[in-house]
Amino acid sequence: MKTKAELIPECPVAITVQLIGNKWKLLIIRNLLQRPWRFNELQRDLDGISQKVLTDSLRSMEADGIITRTVYPEVPPRVEYALSELGHSLQPILDAMKAWGENYKAGL
Amino acid sequence: MKTKAELIPECPVAITVQLIGNKWKLLIIRNLLQRPWRFNELQRDLDGISQKVLTDSLRSMEADGIITRTVYPEVPPRVEYALSELGHSLQPILDAMKAWGENYKAGL
Repeated sequence: MKTKAELIPECPVAITVQLIGNKWKLLIIRNLLQRPWRFNELQRDLDGISQKVLTDSLRSMEADGIITRTVYPEVPPRVEYALSELGHSLQPILDAMKAWGENYKAGL
Repeated sequence: MKTKAELIPECPVAITVQLIGNKWKLLIIRNLLQRPWRFNELQRDLDGISQKVLTDSLRSMEADGIITRTVYPEVPPRVEYALSELGHSLQPILDAMKAWGENYKAGL
């Protein structure tokens, strides 16, 4: 059986792409960099995402240690998603994407 | 009819995600940051990419002005893909992804 370290790519860019190289994950991370979000809030904000894809994306990022899922014992239970420390360390990538997008828009 | 500027998202991160927020495009850009590549070279290097997905990704990035496609009049014709100036300006995003991947790997 392979260890986690053996399953990940050699190339560091490929590692990052494997974990977050996906439209919806990147947009979820953009939102969670602001503050914790609830599932329904995310679904409303991410125009066009299905419930299944949002669920799968959140579970996958939780399994990879990028986000945390906290259930507050209320009625009905409140569930919040937040970035872990590892997730917060993605900030420079999102900052670079923001700067590039601003520059692209200015050039249109 | 909407102009190109009206079709793009308000959020600069969403603009970048719309243009390059995709596993294969990010890996193609990683390769083209080194030097121009030929189609078959890219297909060999990008483990698991189909001919159709590689063709579609390259066409889409060419249409978005991120890469150029140059046909050299040889027999058989040689076709090379390279980053445009706009494509080269993606370097800081890929640099941040590389740094994050290295850090992630070091923490395993």
